[in-house]
Amino acid sequence: MSVARHVDDLRSGRVDLAELGQRMHASMARMFPICRSVTGDGVRTTLDLIEEAVKLERHAVPSGTQAHDWTVNEEWNVRDAYIADASGRRVVDFRESNLHLVSYSTPVRARMSLDELRPHLHTLPDHPDWIPYRTSYYHRTWGFCLTDRQLQSMGPGPYEVVVDTDLGPGEMVYGEVVVPGETDREVMVTSHVCHPSLANDNLSGIAVATEVARTLQALPALRHTYRFLFAPGTVGSITWLSRNPDVVPRLSHGLVLTGLGGPGPLVYKSTRHGGRGVDRAASHVVRRRAGEVRGYSPYGYDERQFNSIGFDLPFGRLSRTPHGEYPEYHTSADDLGFVEPTRLADAYTAIMEIVDVLENDRSYRNLSPYGEPQLGKRGLYPTTGGKSAGDAVMAMLWTLAYTDGSTPLIDIADVADRDFADVRTAADELHRAGLLERLSSQHPA
Amino acid sequence: MSVARHVDDLRSGRVDLAELGQRMHASMARMFPICRSVTGDGVRTTLDLIEEAVKLERHAVPSGTQAHDWTVNEEWNVRDAYIADASGRRVVDFRESNLHLVSYSTPVRARMSLDELRPHLHTLPDHPDWIPYRTSYYHRTWGFCLTDRQLQSMGPGPYEVVVDTDLGPGEMVYGEVVVPGETDREVMVTSHVCHPSLANDNLSGIAVATEVARTLQALPALRHTYRFLFAPGTVGSITWLSRNPDVVPRLSHGLVLTGLGGPGPLVYKSTRHGGRGVDRAASHVVRRRAGEVRGYSPYGYDERQFNSIGFDLPFGRLSRTPHGEYPEYHTSADDLGFVEPTRLADAYTAIMEIVDVLENDRSYRNLSPYGEPQLGKRGLYPTTGGKSAGDAVMAMLWTLAYTDGSTPLIDIADVADRDFADVRTAADELHRAGLLERLSSQHPA
Amino acid sequence: MSVARHVDDLRSGRVDLAELGQRMHASMARMFPICRSVTGDGVRTTLDLIEEAVKLERHAVPSGTQAHDWTVNEEWNVRDAYIADASGRRVVDFRESNLHLVSYSTPVRARMSLDELRPHLHTLPDHPDWIPYRTSYYHRTWGFCLTDRQLQSMGPGPYEVVVDTDLGPGEMVYGEVVVPGETDREVMVTSHVCHPSLANDNLSGIAVATEVARTLQALPALRHTYRFLFAPGTVGSITWLSRNPDVVPRLSHGLVLTGLGGPGPLVYKSTRHGGRGVDRAASHVVRRRAGEVRGYSPYGYDERQFNSIGFDLPFGRLSRTPHGEYPEYHTSADDLGFVEPTRLADAYTAIMEIVDVLENDRSYRNLSPYGEPQLGKRGLYPTTGGKSAGDAVMAMLWTLAYTDGSTPLIDIADVADRDFADVRTAADELHRAGLLERLSSQHPA
Repeated sequence: MSVARHVDDLRSGRVDLAELGQRMHASMARMFPICRSVTGDGVRTTLDLIEEAVKLERHAVPSGTQAHDWTVNEEWNVRDAYIADASGRRVVDFRESNLHLVSYSTPVRARMSLDELRPHLHTLPDHPDWIPYRTSYYHRTWGFCLTDRQLQSMGPGPYEVVVDTDLGPGEMVYGEVVVPGETDREVMVTSHVCHPSLANDNLSGIAVATEVARTLQALPALRHTYRFLFAPGTVGSITWLSRNPDVVPRLSHGLVLTGLGGPGPLVYKSTRHGGRGVDRAASHVVRRRAGEVRGYSPYGYDERQFNSIGFDLPFGRLSRTPHGEYPEYHTSADDLGFVEPTRLADAYTAIMEIVDVLENDRSYRNLSPYGEPQLGKRGLYPTTGGKSAGDAVMAMLWTLAYTDGSTPLIDIADVADRDFADVRTAADELHRAGLLERLSSQHPA
Repeated sequence: MSVARHVDDLRSGRVDLAELGQRMHASMARMFPICRSVTGDGVRTTLDLIEEAVKLERHAVPSGTQAHDWTVNEEWNVRDAYIADASGRRVVDFRESNLHLVSYSTPVRARMSLDELRPHLHTLPDHPDWIPYRTSYYHRTWGFCLTDRQLQSMGPGPYEVVVDTDLGPGEMVYGEVVVPGETDREVMVTSHVCHPSLANDNLSGIAVATEVARTLQALPALRHTYRFLFAPGTVGSITWLSRNPDVVPRLSHGLVLTGLGGPGPLVYKSTRHGGRGVDRAASHVVRRRAGEVRGYSPYGYDERQFNSIGFDLPFGRLSRTPHGEYPEYHTSADDLGFVEPTRLADAYTAIMEIVDVLENDRSYRNLSPYGEPQLGKRGLYPTTGGKSAGDAVMAMLWTLAYTDGSTPLIDIADVADRDFADVRTAADELHRAGLLERLSSQHPA
Repeated sequence: MSVARHVDDLRSGRVDLAELGQRMHASMARMFPICRSVTGDGVRTTLDLIEEAVKLERHAVPSGTQAHDWTVNEEWNVRDAYIADASGRRVVDFRESNLHLVSYSTPVRARMSLDELRPHLHTLPDHPDWIPYRTSYYHRTWGFCLTDRQLQSMGPGPYEVVVDTDLGPGEMVYGEVVVPGETDREVMVTSHVCHPSLANDNLSGIAVATEVARTLQALPALRHTYRFLFAPGTVGSITWLSRNPDVVPRLSHGLVLTGLGGPGPLVYKSTRHGGRGVDRAASHVVRRRAGEVRGYSPYGYDERQFNSIGFDLPFGRLSRTPHGEYPEYHTSADDLGFVEPTRLADAYTAIMEIVDVLENDRSYRNLSPYGEPQLGKRGLYPTTGGKSAGDAVMAMLWTLAYTDGSTPLIDIADVADRDFADVRTAADELHRAGLLERLSSQHPA
């Protein structure tokens, strides 16, 4: 079974997409309660769960390690954190939601009034039932996030405030899955693993990436080597880049996955230069699925690091409605109910279609180029003329009209306004009928 | 009288367009009853009628001749064909409409029930009063086309079924009109002649092409040689291509004419590459007549053969609403009442405007390039300032602003958003006033 | 104080734009009553008023001087002009409005009936209370412009008609302001000074150009030399071009100013080729101020002469609703009430922003190009993560993402959809933080 065959199965309904979506959602449900941050045991546990589906290589980088302009953070772990009232009742409790604690909060054990507490409390007055997500990686402080309704119900105090965290030398961990192909030209897929109990951002990206990795591990004869990176955002990808100078030059295409289970159509964010191979593949697939293609911007996720001037790698980003454009973003409302299994399965299918283009796009040469070859005598055309040609015939006609030896199938698909998979199928049939020569030595860049 | 002068006459009303349209419609009316197909006497008779207007070269190619991937068909002629009921009454009769017989039907003489007949009957249930047009060139069978109302009224039978046709070795014929010009660079105009009693598709193309040929034969001093091809679709044009390897390299521009009398604005379909000379000329003319310009597609008429990768010739196609996009297409509703004389005359005018561009587009050099020349002292400008300049002055100003010796008039017309003929007239006036040098040696490619 | 600082002051409200607009409007009010034409004392007096704000160089060119295709006009001056009825009452009187007399009217002293007068009378029947503006520079005649209401109230006459003008050898005068910069690459700003009592066309252009000249004279260290030309339209600019063959090759950017106080948003008309430096600067500024950018056309003001094929200089034009597109154009309704001080100040600001781009656009090289530099540790980023980045941070991120050593700031501003001034400020901050290298030797072309 090849990528092409798998994509044809996905498109034809021979794969049960509902079951696929449920499986990814279930894996998100197991990862959801874990308290993740840039460092700490949460990332380790998350990698454990990914490893149940795909074999991972793990890497641990000591705190303080320099990675280009950045330094690997100290390790942060939480034992407990709460605000209790005079009666000992916890009015804000980390054990109920790990969003309640500002990430990287320093240890505290104090008794203070509400007025003293207030500078350390974060709420969303416009969404009084939601807890915001806040971090303070680079400024040593502590804080609690709570619903505005919780805050409004709090009396003047005093309160017992406990942040029982460890912040000190340790390590940052990340995982990689490498699926070797016929060449060492690599396609990299990354998903950040540093966010706590937020479902769309980014358990959705992790679950879909894991499923894609599992599929590709089971398929033979890939043209590219595929590398999946599960690492903390920003400092994680910069650290990976600093530690893999030998791999960097082999990265041909990159895709950052995030926010794939929330509302809205698929949105592809182009590489910095645009017009690169991954842009052509992903733009084609996303547009044909009624999604949206946007230009590059230097705000977002790890595409920023890979596209930076020094590395200049062609990494696009696939999401649905992007971060910051839906109100649930970075709040407790981004929970398991916010993401839908069908959307995960749809994103998975789109990614496999992108992989299909990266793997199977090539040029052919029309061997019967003087006028149109007679498809009828080869059994490729309906015998009674006068009606319009069917879709399969049209895909063949488009393919014959443009296979001049230098036009790749993706360009034919775009000009023909047809799915790449249909043009690939047409080229296969015409090749079998002896009408096309496959130009074999195409470099998978 | 030149092409330019003729176009100016067409645009100014000095040519009676109503009379012109009526003449073309009348010639269609004479061709309408003839039973045409890829081969057979119908094509010969049609060429006879064309020849009443313009001198034709005729060519006959024996059945079985190989033409690239195609083989010239056996010749097909019809003496009679009908379905008669038990009383001998013809319920379907070829003599009433040649559409009743599937083209290339093999001979039959049989008695059969309606149930036995049914697989050989074609109707249009959505249009119960229309007869469809069907062919079976490459699959030996026979069939009748009838209105769905006819079919519904037929009893269980038995019926006498007679298809009295000849199908065997013979020849395929086609005709050419060559109008020689100052150079051997050719403009080719083609119209397929293989359709039976269908008015818009393609007696309209034949009638307009014939009229254009007649006009050009009467005009002196053409820059290009003009070649009109009246041949069966697909196999006809492929055969012509296979038999004219000396002419093929001289073909500079091509235009396929079809469906010019039906509804809708003019539609120009570009060459495969786009941006060729004929594309620039035809796009300009069609857009300025509120028509539509479309990209290439490998479905359509003979433009497919000329544009095929091996020949790679720049052939566009001019029609109104294209084939397959109007319900009357390939049915008996495409009759003489479906096409209107004024639309034929409008298409004729557009084609002559395209010819005007192909003939008269050239570059000029502004001989007074330092600031704007003073048009007033040459009698080219209104004497009282303060009001806006008239159209003729504006055309001169645009021409002076861009005649840098390398910008052709068609580009000036496009940037100025003015008709080519107006810019051509402005250039002529400025040339007469000594303000422009005509760059003479422009190659007519 | 630099151009950049001045622009920042304009944008931040530190400059009182209302007072600035009032000052320009007041200077227009002083110029308004003067009778200007291509030649004559009106231009001299206008230059006197400009000189109160900026030091001018004056030039006088004798009538009859040849300038490329044109000849400097004879000088025209008016002592008096009127039409009086039998009782001696002036029914049309030049002293009430200099628009009443057709510019370049030849002397007349006659008694005639209304019927005899009529061919010499110009009115606007659609706007019965407005006086039109008419000229007859190149056809020797005389005429009066009046409101249609005046005309309707005139009896059969007879009338005493007096045009007491001088038309004979003299000179055409124009003025220049040159503000020297570090290089001799010049930015030219022109405004025509040949229109009589018309406020928007072109006292607005003159007033704004004068204010820009005054500002630049007070600023140190300009990269370009700035030249302001106050000359009659068409023949004035052609004469300047013919007399300055040494300056012409140094003109890097040009801007024609006219109609800046009337209604509508800013409209920038591109150079003939488009895509030149002034086009990029002005398009950016005008689009960001919700204005409109148009292509070149050979109708308009002095941009026609500078862009003509022989000179081929990149001159754009800045206006509001262009000439001919508002009904008040070239009528007495284009008066001081038609122009608003705030629009003058807005146009001034836009021009200074264009100058900011011309002066300060350059390329930088990112010195920390491997991943995103950590802005937080340099105090350039908010310390609590989780919310969206502010505008200043976003401008820095865009700048870092594209400063590859060859991308100018104006391109970064366009791709980032941000004001040039914001990107310039971001680059300055990043440069101060040691993250960017300024590439110094950029040629100011």
